[in-house]
Order: sequence, then structure tokens, then C-alpha cells
Amino acid sequence: MKTHANVTHVSPQRPGLAIAEVRLTPILIADPPLLNTQGVHQPYTPRLIVEVVTEDGVAGVGETYGDTKYLDIARPLADALVGRQVGELNGLDRLAAEACGDSPAASGADTVDVGGLRGVQTSGKLRLSVVSGFEVACLDALGKSLGLPVHALLGGKVRDQVEYSAYLFYRWAEHPAGGRRDDWGAAVDPAGVVEQARRFVRDYGFASFKLKGGVFPPDEEIAAIKALAREFPGKPLRLDPNGAWSVETSLQVAEELGDVLEYLEDPASGTDRMAQVAARTGTPLATNMCVTTVPEIREAFTRGAVQVVLSDHHYWGGLLATRELAAICRAFGVGLSMHSNTHLGISLAAMTHVAATVPNLDYACDSHYPWQTEDVITRRHTFRDGRLPVSDAPGLGVELDRDALAALHKRWLVDDGTMRDRDDAAAMRKADPEWATPAVPRW
Amino acid sequence: MKTHANVTHVSPQRPGLAIAEVRLTPILIADPPLLNTQGVHQPYTPRLIVEVVTEDGVAGVGETYGDTKYLDIARPLADALVGRQVGELNGLDRLAAEACGDSPAASGADTVDVGGLRGVQTSGKLRLSVVSGFEVACLDALGKSLGLPVHALLGGKVRDQVEYSAYLFYRWAEHPAGGRRDDWGAAVDPAGVVEQARRFVRDYGFASFKLKGGVFPPDEEIAAIKALAREFPGKPLRLDPNGAWSVETSLQVAEELGDVLEYLEDPASGTDRMAQVAARTGTPLATNMCVTTVPEIREAFTRGAVQVVLSDHHYWGGLLATRELAAICRAFGVGLSMHSNTHLGISLAAMTHVAATVPNLDYACDSHYPWQTEDVITRRHTFRDGRLPVSDAPGLGVELDRDALAALHKRWLVDDGTMRDRDDAAAMRKADPEWATPAVPRW
Repeated sequence: MKTHANVTHVSPQRPGLAIAEVRLTPILIADPPLLNTQGVHQPYTPRLIVEVVTEDGVAGVGETYGDTKYLDIARPLADALVGRQVGELNGLDRLAAEACGDSPAASGADTVDVGGLRGVQTSGKLRLSVVSGFEVACLDALGKSLGLPVHALLGGKVRDQVEYSAYLFYRWAEHPAGGRRDDWGAAVDPAGVVEQARRFVRDYGFASFKLKGGVFPPDEEIAAIKALAREFPGKPLRLDPNGAWSVETSLQVAEELGDVLEYLEDPASGTDRMAQVAARTGTPLATNMCVTTVPEIREAFTRGAVQVVLSDHHYWGGLLATRELAAICRAFGVGLSMHSNTHLGISLAAMTHVAATVPNLDYACDSHYPWQTEDVITRRHTFRDGRLPVSDAPGLGVELDRDALAALHKRWLVDDGTMRDRDDAAAMRKADPEWATPAVPRW
Repeated sequence: MKTHANVTHVSPQRPGLAIAEVRLTPILIADPPLLNTQGVHQPYTPRLIVEVVTEDGVAGVGETYGDTKYLDIARPLADALVGRQVGELNGLDRLAAEACGDSPAASGADTVDVGGLRGVQTSGKLRLSVVSGFEVACLDALGKSLGLPVHALLGGKVRDQVEYSAYLFYRWAEHPAGGRRDDWGAAVDPAGVVEQARRFVRDYGFASFKLKGGVFPPDEEIAAIKALAREFPGKPLRLDPNGAWSVETSLQVAEELGDVLEYLEDPASGTDRMAQVAARTGTPLATNMCVTTVPEIREAFTRGAVQVVLSDHHYWGGLLATRELAAICRAFGVGLSMHSNTHLGISLAAMTHVAATVPNLDYACDSHYPWQTEDVITRRHTFRDGRLPVSDAPGLGVELDRDALAALHKRWLVDDGTMRDRDDAAAMRKADPEWATPAVPRW
């Protein structure tokens, strides 16, 4: 006898833990001119800050993507949340699906942004990314209400520190159309990449390195990885061209770099190509492109297409879902690492909490955080020895900086529309008017 | 860079939530003469009641198997728990492995009870079963401490009621060596099974039925299921011979009953035989024998050996692990139901809480509970329309009956040793001195 979920009831468990209000604040944050196979980061990128406030007046914060298509889902979900218990997380995605059933974002064809950095984009993926920001805000509020850190709401931490890797990017010194300039300078060749890595080690103590590739022809990126291997012998190295290569190119790179790479990340696009590469190399393949939702797992794992999955609580719909992904990986002998996109300190806190609770988070996590010069929390996180301590303070252990939030929201308000939706190809066209998103495989 | 779990630290999060004391109370509970392929239930069966008490004086309860080999693991784990935060659940199995590293139960060969009703028994399985009782007690204590029901500690319920099925058994009217006699009478043929089912419907409103098979030759059990199908047309039926049949016999039964069975449970023993059966029938196969631990999942799912897994929080190590199993099943399109062994009201509460939180618990759950006339809680659960309501009271929502507990513990204390370890074959030898555990396949 099939039994059916019913997520729309309002639990009478603890009135004070019912959600009284949800505040959504879209912001634009400064972003350096980091290069990838699709183009270059814009000077500003959108994020959405979610605040969930309980009847008792406790506010929790979450953070997720802030592009228009995400906001279109977040608004009806925010309305639907009011009155629910803040700890009712299992039904959030279903609630979101119900709440935005008629919105364009939810009903659109599953072909938005084909070939994007996240694989094929679907309405379900968009929705889960929105849900993740709400789920983290709920967990923060619940933890603060109960006097427990978020990791304790996830069954408890199994480590006191979480290790991160240095996320190296080819980059320009400044954005092509001008704007805020940082002091990192350009990195467009092996020497520049090594110099960037040195600074990461000096400032933060990272002991493993990932290079975002797919920017230059493979030989140049191979040379950069080899330069890193010479500079940091024995340190784990990763290369991620975001699926830009053919199967044959992927195999050539794996052959050249097999003895220095910890793993090769998304060398080719799609499960089928990844499976073809995996069948012919001993270099572990990692992905945050062909396995980014539950329905994609079965084929990839059964075919042995990937040896490491990069979790991302934004992609998978939150911290509970990330823990479930970890369980699936454990059962199938697939390694687990953690992906990052441009994010602020709220998400970094969430990443650190969930990473602390997963026994098989076997690799140092990715994070863009060192590239972000702005934040919405009062005390920025500081990497030491490449690690962050796991906070035992209630909730996430971060505090919202309302002045900073207001300033970044004002930037969003006054934007003429060009930055409210991340578009790395549009940014690249400022430098190269002929630029179009490259077809895959690019090389 | 591999990072390593460290579960032995003592978290300073909330001193009042640290574990001050763990009480273990082995008991013997009355059990009717239910038949299975190994023999017959003894007049009394052992259970272990676990109480975890926090520094604030809040006590949580859990329940698990009480045989000597489980107690041998439970005692060192109880000692090791003191001082830890009651919500630190992720590291419990590792703590148990460390705590009883030198005990005979843990170091024994992985071949205890081969061919038992649970598949091959291993030290890891024993340990997880013990851990489950502790985990549930911790969750009960945490929920009571925070004023939240256990389901809210698992991400929240997605349904307000959980459906159970009628668990039908071939049985005798009384135990062969005498002892307590109930009013159910014997059921050793189709008419007796149907009569038993009618009473289950009358008393509890169950709307689906499972018959424990493997007791009589397959033709007799086929006849019993057909009789149930005639008596309850359209109602879901299940048959579970505990792996007693050969591949060919399994296929013959599937052929005969394919149009009335919801699923056929463990017709043959082991993943290989199950895969052979599955390849040649459209009848869904369920298991609580060949997939009972994480390492068994991969082969079974990859080979399509099972279409439904019967979860059991005692087997899998607790409620968090049950939710992880559910996630794995979702990802691989495998159905999820719930298994039961002889248990009391504490475990039934735990089963109901976790079942309420899992979106894909697609089938009515098994429970032996109606067969149990004794309990250690003050208010027994009552099935209505075959369902139990999901409690919103803090913790599990049950209260320990100390007088009942003391009485059942006294029975354990004065037992001469014959009942402290469940042995269905020994019980059968009271009726048939020549009885030996049948070799598999039996038919």
C-alpha cells in the first residue's frame, strides 16, 4: 500500500519555533576577473541573503545564488514558509515546487543554460539551489533557538577542523571595462599561477591546489600544473577545465599529469564522455557537472564514470541532502570532495558545518572565499594552515552585518540590470566583442 | 589531502546535554510460538533497554536485541558514552568499535549464525544493532531536552500517520514445553491464516498482509496466499520464506502468485540467488537478508537483485542511518519498506518517527507488535485503520514503566540461561528432538 507524503500541515510542536517572517535581500558583491572556459567573472555577481525569523524573534541566515531566475523561486517559497516549524526541512523542496508551480522558472523547459558550468541546468536544479539557502537559514535559526551549533543538528561533528584547498584561477589584473581592482595582478601563464599559489600558501597555509582550467589550450594548462608540482612537490593538485575537452584530449592530459594529480575534475562534458575517459585512465575523475542531482547518480556510479563527487549544498538542496549524497558515495565506494562557486561567509560557515559531520569527506574542500573582498558577516572567516575551525557557537556561528548588507543591496537596487544575472560570456565580450560561449568539446 | 575523523573529543557545546549515565537493563519478554523456517519462537525472548541520562537529568530510552552477544558490546559502549554530548550520533559506531575492540563479540569471526534469519551475521552487524538502541535513546533524551519530537530532530515529518501491515505467522496454540498461552489459537493451514488475518483486520484495521513463510512446503504457502487474496481482494499481500527456496522454487512461486503479491520477500538466500530470480520474474523482490548493511548495497543494486529494501533501524545502526538508506534507495530507484523483529513499544515509536520523515517509505511497515502482550512503556501503542499517529510530544513520546521493566528484568535475572539467547531451533527441538536448522535451500 503506497503511503503519501503530506508536507503542507502546520505542526503544533513549538509555537515559538514557527516561522513568522522570511526576508530576502538580493545583493551584488565584488568579484575579481577570474577566467573560465565560458568567459570571465563580471565585476559584480548576485547573491541572495535569506533571513528566516521565528515567532520567538530568532533570526537565521542563509545564502544562495541571486540571479533573477533564483529570486523568482525564492519569493513564493518565502511566502509559503510562514507558519511552518523552522525545523521542518524534509519537505522544503516539495513545498518549493508547490509554491512556485506556475512561475516561469519552475515551468520552463529543462534546457536553461545548456553547457553551463554546472552541466545542463534544469528547473529542479534551480529550485534546489534556492531551497539550500532557506534550509541553511532554518538550521541557523533552529540552532540559535536551541543553543546548539548547526553541526549538532546534523548528528554531530566528527572533526574539529575542516581543510580547504587553494582555488587557483587564471585571471586578469583588472576587469576589461574597469571597476574595482585588487592587488593580485594577472595570472595567465605557469609563472603567474605559481606566484598566485605562493601567496595562497603564505596568507592561508593551504596545502593542496586546484587550478580552474579550460581557459588556455591544454598544453599550457599541463605546463601550469607541472610548474605547481615542481614548486610544491608531493602536494595534492587538481585541474578542472569544466568539461571543455574531448575524450582523447582528456586522456592525453591524464597521461601527462597522472602522477601529480590528486584527481582530474570534469575533463569532458557529460556522463558518457566521462565514462569513456574513466575506462581508459587510472587517474581518478571528479565531477560537479555530470553528477549534480540525485537522478544523475545511478548511471554515473553504475558505469564508473566518476571516482569523486564534489558535493555542494547549494546544488543538492541543503546540508541534509549533502549528508545523503555522502552516504550514497560511501555505499558505492565513490570519493567525496566539495565544490564551490562564488560565495560569502554565510555559505562558508554552512559548508564547514556539514563537512565536519561527514566521515567520508576525504578531500580538502574547494572555496572561492579568498577571492571575495566583501562580506555580509561581522567577522570574516580566516584560514589557518589551510583550515577553518568548526564553530561550536549556536547556529552557524556567524552574525549578519546589517550595514554591509544594506550597502550591497543598494548596489543591486541601482544596478542597471547588467550585473543582476551572472553572465561570464557577456563579461568576456567587453574584452573580445566576438566572444561566444565555446562549443563543447572546445579542445 | 585525506582528512581524518576524530570522534573521541568531548564537545563543550552544552554541558547539560553531556551524558552523565547510561543504564542497561536486559529483559525477557513473552513471545508466542510463531513458526519460521529455522524453528519456532521461544516462550521468552531477550531485549535490552538502554537509558541515557544527561547531566541535566533528562533520560532517553532505546531498545534493541538483548542476547548475550549484544550485551557484550553494549556494556563497553555504555561506559564510553559518558561525557559525550547526547546529540553526537555520527561517531557512535566508530566509538562502539573502539570501545569493544577486544571483546569476543567484536573480534569473532564474521560467521556467527550463518544462515540466520538476517543473512550472514557479522561482528559489524551485531555492533550496529547495539548502536541503534543507544542512538534512539540519545535522540529521545535530546528531544526531551529540547522540547522537540524525535522526527523534528530528523528534519521533520512528511506525514502525520504511518501505516503498518498485518504480520501473519503460522503458529501453534501453545509452546511445546508449556508456558504462557494466548487466545490466538493455532494457524497451520490456509483457513487458520485467513482467520488470523480477519482478527488483525477486526482489531487493528490493517489493510495489507505479510505471511512469514518457509515453514511448510511451498504449495501449502501458495494456497494460504491465494486464500488471503480471495478473502481480501485487491489488498497488498507479501510472502517471506526467509531465503528457504531454491531459484527454481522461487520462480515457480512467483509465477503462481505474481498477480496477487505486492512483493516476494527473500525467496532465495543470498544476493546471487536473488539476482537470478529477479532476472527471470516481474514480481518485485524485497529483502532484509541480502541487503542489511552498507557494504552489501552496491552489488545487489547494480545487479538488480532486489526491488525493495526492508529497512530496520536496529540493523542499520539507528534512525540517521535508516534515513541514509532511504536516500540510497531513492537514488537507485529501489523501493523502501520496513522490517520488524520481535520488539516492544520503544522501538515501535522509533520506527514510526523515522518512517514519518522519509518521503519514499512507499509501503506499509512490518511490525511484530500485535504479538507482544508485554511492554515496558506506560501506554501501549494502538493501531487504528492499520496506522499509528506520529507523536509530536518531546522525544519518542513514550514513558518507561519502571515496574514493568523491573519485572521483566527479574525474569531475565532468574532465567536458567535457556532463554537469554534466542534460539528458534532449540525451541523447535522441544517438539521435535530431531530438529536441526534446515540447510538452504530447503525446498
